[in-house]
Formats: sequence, C-alpha cells, structure tokens
Amino acid sequence: MPGNSIGQLFRVTTFGESHGLALGCIIDGFPPGMALSEKDLQIDLDRRRPGTSSYTSSRYEQDQVKILSGVFNGITTGTSIGLLVQNENQRSLDYSDIKDVFRPGHADYTYQKKYGIRDYRGGGRASARETVMRVAAGTIAKKYLRQQLGVIIRAYLSQLGNIFCELKDWDLVEQNPFFCPDITKLDALDSLLSSLKKEGNSIGAKITVIAEYVPVGLGEPVFNRLDADIAHAMMSINAVKGIEIGAGFKVVTLKGNENRDEITNNGFIKNNAGGILGGISSGQQIITHLAFKPTSSIKIPGKSVNNDGDEIEVITEGRHDPCVGIRAIPIVEAMMAIVLMDHFLRYRAQCNIKF
Amino acid sequence: MPGNSIGQLFRVTTFGESHGLALGCIIDGFPPGMALSEKDLQIDLDRRRPGTSSYTSSRYEQDQVKILSGVFNGITTGTSIGLLVQNENQRSLDYSDIKDVFRPGHADYTYQKKYGIRDYRGGGRASARETVMRVAAGTIAKKYLRQQLGVIIRAYLSQLGNIFCELKDWDLVEQNPFFCPDITKLDALDSLLSSLKKEGNSIGAKITVIAEYVPVGLGEPVFNRLDADIAHAMMSINAVKGIEIGAGFKVVTLKGNENRDEITNNGFIKNNAGGILGGISSGQQIITHLAFKPTSSIKIPGKSVNNDGDEIEVITEGRHDPCVGIRAIPIVEAMMAIVLMDHFLRYRAQCNIKF
Amino acid sequence: MPGNSIGQLFRVTTFGESHGLALGCIIDGFPPGMALSEKDLQIDLDRRRPGTSSYTSSRYEQDQVKILSGVFNGITTGTSIGLLVQNENQRSLDYSDIKDVFRPGHADYTYQKKYGIRDYRGGGRASARETVMRVAAGTIAKKYLRQQLGVIIRAYLSQLGNIFCELKDWDLVEQNPFFCPDITKLDALDSLLSSLKKEGNSIGAKITVIAEYVPVGLGEPVFNRLDADIAHAMMSINAVKGIEIGAGFKVVTLKGNENRDEITNNGFIKNNAGGILGGISSGQQIITHLAFKPTSSIKIPGKSVNNDGDEIEVITEGRHDPCVGIRAIPIVEAMMAIVLMDHFLRYRAQCNIKF
Amino acid sequence: MPGNSIGQLFRVTTFGESHGLALGCIIDGFPPGMALSEKDLQIDLDRRRPGTSSYTSSRYEQDQVKILSGVFNGITTGTSIGLLVQNENQRSLDYSDIKDVFRPGHADYTYQKKYGIRDYRGGGRASARETVMRVAAGTIAKKYLRQQLGVIIRAYLSQLGNIFCELKDWDLVEQNPFFCPDITKLDALDSLLSSLKKEGNSIGAKITVIAEYVPVGLGEPVFNRLDADIAHAMMSINAVKGIEIGAGFKVVTLKGNENRDEITNNGFIKNNAGGILGGISSGQQIITHLAFKPTSSIKIPGKSVNNDGDEIEVITEGRHDPCVGIRAIPIVEAMMAIVLMDHFLRYRAQCNIKF
Repeated sequence: MPGNSIGQLFRVTTFGESHGLALGCIIDGFPPGMALSEKDLQIDLDRRRPGTSSYTSSRYEQDQVKILSGVFNGITTGTSIGLLVQNENQRSLDYSDIKDVFRPGHADYTYQKKYGIRDYRGGGRASARETVMRVAAGTIAKKYLRQQLGVIIRAYLSQLGNIFCELKDWDLVEQNPFFCPDITKLDALDSLLSSLKKEGNSIGAKITVIAEYVPVGLGEPVFNRLDADIAHAMMSINAVKGIEIGAGFKVVTLKGNENRDEITNNGFIKNNAGGILGGISSGQQIITHLAFKPTSSIKIPGKSVNNDGDEIEVITEGRHDPCVGIRAIPIVEAMMAIVLMDHFLRYRAQCNIKF
Repeated sequence: MPGNSIGQLFRVTTFGESHGLALGCIIDGFPPGMALSEKDLQIDLDRRRPGTSSYTSSRYEQDQVKILSGVFNGITTGTSIGLLVQNENQRSLDYSDIKDVFRPGHADYTYQKKYGIRDYRGGGRASARETVMRVAAGTIAKKYLRQQLGVIIRAYLSQLGNIFCELKDWDLVEQNPFFCPDITKLDALDSLLSSLKKEGNSIGAKITVIAEYVPVGLGEPVFNRLDADIAHAMMSINAVKGIEIGAGFKVVTLKGNENRDEITNNGFIKNNAGGILGGISSGQQIITHLAFKPTSSIKIPGKSVNNDGDEIEVITEGRHDPCVGIRAIPIVEAMMAIVLMDHFLRYRAQCNIKF
Repeated sequence: MPGNSIGQLFRVTTFGESHGLALGCIIDGFPPGMALSEKDLQIDLDRRRPGTSSYTSSRYEQDQVKILSGVFNGITTGTSIGLLVQNENQRSLDYSDIKDVFRPGHADYTYQKKYGIRDYRGGGRASARETVMRVAAGTIAKKYLRQQLGVIIRAYLSQLGNIFCELKDWDLVEQNPFFCPDITKLDALDSLLSSLKKEGNSIGAKITVIAEYVPVGLGEPVFNRLDADIAHAMMSINAVKGIEIGAGFKVVTLKGNENRDEITNNGFIKNNAGGILGGISSGQQIITHLAFKPTSSIKIPGKSVNNDGDEIEVITEGRHDPCVGIRAIPIVEAMMAIVLMDHFLRYRAQCNIKF
Repeated sequence: MPGNSIGQLFRVTTFGESHGLALGCIIDGFPPGMALSEKDLQIDLDRRRPGTSSYTSSRYEQDQVKILSGVFNGITTGTSIGLLVQNENQRSLDYSDIKDVFRPGHADYTYQKKYGIRDYRGGGRASARETVMRVAAGTIAKKYLRQQLGVIIRAYLSQLGNIFCELKDWDLVEQNPFFCPDITKLDALDSLLSSLKKEGNSIGAKITVIAEYVPVGLGEPVFNRLDADIAHAMMSINAVKGIEIGAGFKVVTLKGNENRDEITNNGFIKNNAGGILGGISSGQQIITHLAFKPTSSIKIPGKSVNNDGDEIEVITEGRHDPCVGIRAIPIVEAMMAIVLMDHFLRYRAQCNIKF
C-alpha cells in the first residue's frame, strides 16, 4: 500500500500540498447512523488552524471543511466520506530563490532525491499543512468514540524547552494559547516564545496525550499491538522524534518489582504500562508522550547546498511557528482517535459475538 | 488485516505459542534469485536463543529452523517461504496454579478479557518466544540488504539500569553476553545482573540500533514514513515502552538552530535527524533508541487477582531473563531489516524507472 | 480494508453519490515524472459521459475533472493525486414516491438492510455515476502503460441481445454510439435500441476488452493471479454478471489437446488461455469477455414492496440507458488499466533487479 | 501485498510446492471460542485428496493436517492458526527431461520468465496441490458459518463436456465420484471419463456452487462487492476460465423486465441476480457457476519449445486427473466459505452496533 492512508477498518486517505488548490481526504469504513455536520469537524480544525495567536504562524486560513459524500440528511450512511478544504492563502510568491535549495532540517533534499521532482512551494506535501485532514478525520472518530463508548481523548503541553508543565487543570488547557495545564508556567512560556520569535529561532516541545475510558480489549497481537499502532500514527506526524507509552524511557532504570503494576480488587495500583498490556488496552488510561523537534524554518542563517551542489546560506523567511509542538495538540488527539476507532472496529469484527 | 503480519511488500506472517508444538512463519514477496540456506538463518537464531549464558533464561531450545518452501536448489524462487521451528523444551508442567492468575505486568489479564480464553502455558502467544520467527525472517532481509545495497544493521546495549555503555567498539558487542560495546562496563554489568538474579529481580535496558549505508529515498509519506514504520515495528516487540529516532527526546530542549543538521559539500554536519527527513531516508546512519522494561516475571511476590476476582500473591518461578533487553538485540536488528526491506521494495515499485 | 479502494500499489479510492455535491478520488502510488493534465483525463470521461447520443441517458453532465494535488508544473510528483468532479445536473426532484420503495433489480433493498439508511436519490452510492472516478483514474494508468510499455487497452461491444458483433474494425468502434466493431450490425443495433426505448425496456450486452503488448510476467500467484484480479475488478462494475478469460465457458466442452495453446518458435499458435498462464501474463493478448445485465430502471411496471412491507408497483421514470453495457466501454478499459498498472508496479517491486 | 494471501479480516496465507517438504498456511483473524479439531479439517481434505477413485490422479497422499497453534484445549483462542500437511509421495524422479521444457497450457513458461527460476518438479507452486491448504482453511470458515449463521455451502458438477447434470438430488452428490446430482448421467460420465483416460486426454467441466441461508448485508460497495470478491476467489483457483453470478451470460439476451427479480410479500419471485444486489447479499441463495479448463497434462504429444528455444514435442506422463473440475468441488466450496467468512467479519465491524 502506498503511504497516504492510515487505518485498516477506519481508513483515512489524504491528498494535498501546502500551496496547492485544496486538501482533501476520504474516510472509508465509518459506521452508518451517526449524526455528522460540518460544524462538528470545524471545532478541532479551528483549534489547529494558524493565525489565531501571536505564537503561531501568521498564515491565515479559514480551513472551512466541506462534506462531499457519505452523509445524507445529516446522518452517516456507511459509504465513503469525502472531505475538502480549499487553500485560500497560498500566496503566489516568487519561489525562484528557494526552488533549488535544500533547507536544512526539511524534507527538500529527500523528496528531491526520491522523486526527482518536488513541489517546493511551502514544503509541498511535506508541509504540516497536510495535517488539516488528519484533524478533520480524527474529529469524526472522536465523536463516535465519545458517543458510543464514552472515550475522552485530550492532549496538553507537558514540556517546552526546559519549562515543565504538570497536568494540574484540564480546563486550563483550552484557555491559553500554549495548551498548558499549569497556570504557574504561562508567563515563562510567553516570555520564552516571545524572545525566540524576536531572535527568529524556535524550540522543541513534549506533548502528552491521554485517552480515558477506553474499553479493555483493543489491540491486535502481535504486530498490530495497540501501542505499536499508536507509535506508528504518532511518529507519522511531522517533527515527532520520540514516543513513550506510560513510563517510557524511565523503565530503563527501573527494577521489575518497581515497574510492574500490581493489581488489587480496586484495579491496578499504578499505571507504568500506560494502559496497554501485551499490546491490548487494559482499561486504564492510555498515556503517550511525544517529542517534537523545533521548527526548522527559522530566520537564523544556516549552511546548506543547492541542486547544483554549491554551498549556500539559507534563511527561512515567512510565516512559521516558533514551536510547532504547540499547534500539534489537536493533531495528536486526532491520531489517537483514528487508531482507537480502527481498533474498536477490529475488535468488533473478531471478538464481539459470543458462542 | 488481523495482527499477525508485518510489512506490505516484504510481508511476514507468524504463528505459534510459547508452549505449543511449533513456531512458524510465511514470508511473502521476497525476490527470486538469492542463495538461501537454513545455515543463514541459524546465525541470528543462535544469537537470540535462550540458555546460552548465565544471564539469560535457562530454557533450552535448539531453535533449529526448517525451510519448507520458496527455495529450490538453494535459491529463492519468488514464491512464499515457509519456515518452521519445533518447540522442544516446552515442559509439561502442572499449570493449575497459574491458569486462573493474572500475573502483574503480563498480558494474562488483557488476553483473557479480549478473547475470553487464553493459552496460559508460558504466556502463550504473548510470550517473547514468538520473536523466534521475527529473527528468522529478519535474517533473510538482512542478507538481501547487505548483498544488494551494502546495508549493515547492528544493535548494542546502550544502557542497563544506570550503567551507560558508549559505542566504542562494534567488535566487542559480539564478544560479551551483554552485547555491550564498552569494555569498561562489563564488570559493572556482570555484578548488577548477578545481584538481580540473586534477589530474583530484573532491570530495564536501552538498546540502540544503527543501520548504515541505507540508500536515500526509502520511506513513503505521509503515513508510512520510514520513521513511523520503524516505530511501529519496534513498539511491536515485547517489553518496548519507548522509541527515539536520532536525537529523540533531546529535541524538546533544543533550539531550531541547534537541532537542524546543516549541509555542506561533505554532507550533513551532524545527525540529529537520525537519518530520516520528512519520513524519507537521507543516506545518513539511521539511529534508533529503544526502552525495554524489566522482565515482569520475577521471584519477588506481587499483588494480583485471579479470574474469580480474589486478591492473591504471585511469584513467578521458572526460567526468565533478568534483563529481557539484552536478548532483544537480534530481534531489534531483525525488525529494522524487515522495515528497510519492505521499503526498499516499495521504493523500487514507485520510483526506479526513469521517464 | 473497507470497500472503496482498489489496487495495492496503484491504489484508487473513491467517494461520491449520484446526486451528491461531487464525486472524487485519490490515486496513491503513481510514479513521479509523467506529464499529466486535466485534458488527458477528459478524453475518456467524455467517452463515458451521458447525454451524448440518443441511446444513452439524457442526464446532462459536463464531468469536468479537476486535479487538486500530486501534479506540479504539469508533472506527477509521486504524491497522492486528488481528483474532483462536481455534480451539476443532480435535479432536486421530489423523491417522496421512491424513498420508501425497493426498486427490483436495484440495490435499494440491500443497502437499506445493511446500513439502515440510504441516499435514495438516483441510487446514491450504488449508481453507475460512481464509475466517473474509475474512468478518470484508469486514464492515468492507461497513459502510463502506453508510454512506458506500449500497452494498448481497448474494448468493444461484442453482443447486444441476440446481435453478435465481430471484431472487424477497431477504428469503427469509436465512430458509432454502440462501440460496435462490425459495420454490418449498426442498423440492427439502432433499430433494436430504438424499439426498446419506445417500449421503455432495456437489454443486456456482452463487452470484450483486449489488452495488447502486455509484458510477460505480470500477476502474483497464487491468490492475486492476474486473471483473479481482473475478475475482481470487472465484477465490481455495476451490472456485470459474468466474466470469461480467453476461451471462457467454451473450455467446458473442450478436450485437453484442443484447449491447450501449443508453442512454436513463432510463439503460441492460438490463445485459448486469454494471455494468462498460471495467473501470470504470457505476452499474448489479454482477452476478457463480460456480461452486462439489462438496466433495471425501466418504464414497464414491476412488482415490489416498500419499507413497510406493502406490495406495490414500480415504474422507473427518469433518464436511463436502454443498454447500460454500451456506456461501460471506457469503464471496462479503465478497470483493465488499473489492474495492469497495479501489477506492473508489483512486478517491479519483486522482480526487476538481477542478482 | 504479495500474492499468497486472501481475505482481509479472515486472512489465509499459504506456502508450499507440489514436491516440496510440506504445505502450510496461517489463518489470521479467526474469532476465539469455537471448538476445532484436526478431524474437522480432515473431512474436506479427504473429499479433495487424490487417489480415491479411478477417475482421479493416482498420486497417493494421506493429507493429514496438523494444527500447530491457535487452538487450546480444543477451542480457538483468537490467535493465528498454523496448519501443516507433509508431502509424502513427492517421488524423487529424474526431472532432467522436463526441467527445461515449457509444457503447453502450464505455467512453466510464465514462471520462468517472471522469476528467472522455477521449481519444475510437478509444477512447483503452480500445481493444484497448493489448494490443499485452501480446503483446510475453508473448512474452518464453513464450520463457523454453519454454527453461527446456519449457512450451508455446497457445490456440484453441472456439466462435463457435453453432459449436462441437473441439480436433482444433493444427497447423490456425495455418493458418486463425479459429484454429480443427477443419477441419470452417471453412466455417461463414467464412459466418457474412461474413454478419455484410455486416449490419455482430458475434458473441461462446469461446477456450480450454492450458498444458502446467507444473511442480508454481506458485501462492501463499491470495489469489494460480494460478487467481485467471489469472482476474485474463484478465478484464483487453478484452471478456472469463467465465472457467472446468477443468470450469468444469459443476461446478455434478456430484456430488463425479464431479468429483474420482482419482489412480493413472499420475497423475490426468482433469482437471476444470484443472491447479490449492488454487491450486497440479498438473503437469497448465492449461485455461482465456474468453467474449468481440461487438464493440460495429457499423454497426447503437443508442440512446445524449451529454454533454449528449440522446438520439441511434449508428452506428460505421470498421475493426472482426466477432469480437474471434478476434484475442485471441495476447493470451490472452500473459496466461497473464505469469502463469506471474511465479509461476515467485515459486516460485523462496520454495521452491527445500533446508535
């Protein structure tokens, strides 16, 4: 299978370039009978969309999504759902200065070598603008999981540079532009991002996503373990360089008796496993941490080469986020929803009828 | 697709339980024309197999692999390759004491809840014994990649508990039972593992795997990025709780100008990206770090419940590794080989003919 | 995988209902570097589109296709190709008379029972209007196969009712509205179709599709034989009820020495096999015959029931083809192209590098 | 995906050559909780196996199947099921006379051209011996469908040469070596096959398979229609050259009002559709007809060429069926069971939970 699809039974296939005419996707396998409107999709698209605070890219997009099929009289029909978002603000710039340049930290070099051609405008298919459709598709899964199973999926900023944000208040997350759950860190975040913006630099971030009320039993051993599919989905997001399930890299220094989550009549007494045992959800919270690298598009000059092999200096002007991790919050939630939705349907196929 | 397959074009499907009659796999999509013998496969199977040092499980298995199809007169034919390993030492124990018990840290609970039935002998399908076939399949991929492309895939122990092992000497890795590349750490490893064994406890580990001489261009945007498929494959290994590509979680504290790998006429000046840009291999070393949790099967009593919901105390007697990460070295290499092989075939399908 | 995709490496996923806003598809896996324009796609879309002769439905659609991604400066880039066709003439009728009715011969009944809901306007997703996107995608494959390999794919009307049309003249096929290759049958076809139109009835047809200059070696034993994948693709077209490869059902009465195609230095001496041996193309012409049932939408009253189980009489007014087989010519060619393209990429993945 | 798998959720992957060590398969996705023994599998394996009458190949094989995994204490566990059959009677012949010869009607030529190498012993992977594993896997699906849904799948010989066999008596089918349901034709069949055997020739056959009590709703529009997947599965059987659903090629001469199956309160009044409307099962009998070509391995000399391009004469000595269609009965049933099982799981995934 080529690379533009994710999921087996809840299957999302996307298309679109950063500065092309439109972004779109097809969602295949979604069950019939759920109420669905464009308004439902817009909520997370608006959480993701640029130009909404001074800490994100100033590229302005309405990101108005259109449902083209699969919904009839406001209800899903079981047929494939086509979604479309027009690109409005793709700016017809003069690209002559960048079209032959491999920007360091970007996919310019690898796309050119792999395909022999690339859409160099705004990163083309490699741009994070591609994630618009992930968010749209994920929102549909989220709604279904919440309605059918009570699943709640939420993410927050857990670290930015050396600023650590504890999960103190979920409500706060939606009330500040950093998706930070810790009110004591808002000033530090603001001043760090402001100073980075001034120097034309960027910073990495750690995002934590938690899925609650996931039923026991999702995940297919041995290769499509739930954690393996989560790792795949998350690592497919632009800029992600690391992923942890539960205790993650902390397990390296733990002893067996410290790490294992003992069980009592009240359930597991802790959750180092991150809600997954043997690749199957245990009913505990599913907890995942992700490392986002700093935006590579910065105004500080960097060394590179061009198509002809000449050494050059690159400065990326334009509208970029000082921390790409922040805007990834709804994307991360969407990917978690896509994986859980897919595994819920898979579970239902194999396991739900009693003999 | 159900969960017992990995890869799209180089496709490995496995079966077998820890204490069943045999383990087997089918490899589909392997190119015709390569010399292949059972001896080729045995090399890594022997590196993986238990009972070879005092630091690993004392379960003794020959792990003699049989090639049942797909090879004719010593040459692969392009048809599906069937492999089989008999379980010899499955020990007909009395399992009455564990068959109703959910061992903490194990998949007992989730298998029972998902399937309503489980093979409780030695962990059944959830046992790491399942990885025998991963190693066999991976060895075939490794041989092909080395012969056709010169790719070299090697892994080593980079951390065990708080002992850090630097990559000083690849040759050393195969000369000590810890797969440690740093001669100064062998004594510390020995004494830590010996003391753990004595107290019936276990410890986590960090494994690093490096693929060298991978050609530019492997990986399929956007969902089947090379790093996403590596993350998937690695997280599907028993006990893995974290994965990093290149700088991994270090990127959280890096600035954009620190993190990006600048390019000169001599190539990239460093490798924070871990050899992958935009999901496509860049020609640099592919570097991945993995966190393995400590073995959950330990002799220190732990709290749990049984099928009836009664609180009980569990002690896992039997033949277990004090550090499951150590024996994972050939498994990790195998999974890397499987992913690279698959992506090499995918690359060839889409990109190798010039217009 | 849900049902709206076809192909493994050249993968086409479609959406859209007969009277929805638009039809669309995503083509994934197409190689980079081929010139592609909307004009290329329009040729076959125009051959398929309704309202072009008095023998086809009078529904008028421009079927103007838009390429939304995957092509940059007129050249394919290797990323997913998004295509869109707006529905223009979906007519906002009053559907109150048909929304609860199961038209005999149609999918109304089965969609309702399967999904519990259906878009009843013009057949919804079950309408042959869905094939617009098959034609668009197939045209891209056709162009590639012709340019890269010299493959020519053409179909013609070989039988309509009891009128048999011999393959006398390929050029004639595009010069008459019946896609008939036999000039002596044009009058008979005209008068039969005219009389059917007058009585509000319809008729079945046999279509033959031939692919020439297909290289030896396409097809993957044992389940994805080339003929098996052709059968799958063709039977997925609305109204197809039978498929033959080469001699087809004639083989039932043939003896072994009559049926087998002997080989000399000049190649095979006949082609009962239809160009496929053991599921793999032999280099001969690939010949497939298809049976299309008569359009079920006719003006002659028929018995049926409604949602409430009441017996009713159904007359299908509206704009329908007296012989749906005729308009299927470009669809059949498209499906053949999609299968061959997919298998060419698969061949290249597994077989094209010599040891 | 390479070619040795079939099914999406009930997934069967096979390996093995005619004269290799063994044949095997892995069944992935089968639900937990069903009683399953080797005896269950043996029933259809025995119906298929050679050497049981004077009308079939005299190659003698026990075809004793071994269940290697996925069943615990006689109950399926939801993990992958590994099956194995040893080849016992593979006869170490001297193959020097055939190893460079392309037997007409066989896959020798295409395998050689595609892969550059082939196992020439007994047809290798292209031999119908490969279908042993289809039958084993199909039997598991058959048992499940019968137990869970009451589905009955049966096939019979409907034509052999010019002898037409009507479906008069299902019981008779299992009581004669031709699987013929018409007692008046047994003598004619016997004398035709005996005379063919004498002259060293073979004959084609038509097989009809009927699935009864299939629930409404199986099949996934638009590409994975139930009929499309049946066509795929059946055309993947060795020697099949044509397939019909319901009225099949008869529809070519039918008018719309003759072909459509009207509906009353007592259900459909006939079944030209063959139980499938819009690609979805309607609850009627699913009826499929298949054309099997005559065995190509005959004793009558035929022209061919060898690897060096020299013209030669080929006579196929050895143990071959005068009509390969006869022995295909259990294979055809198995393929139908595999497709229906797969679609039942798919249906359950998408449709069975009400909002």
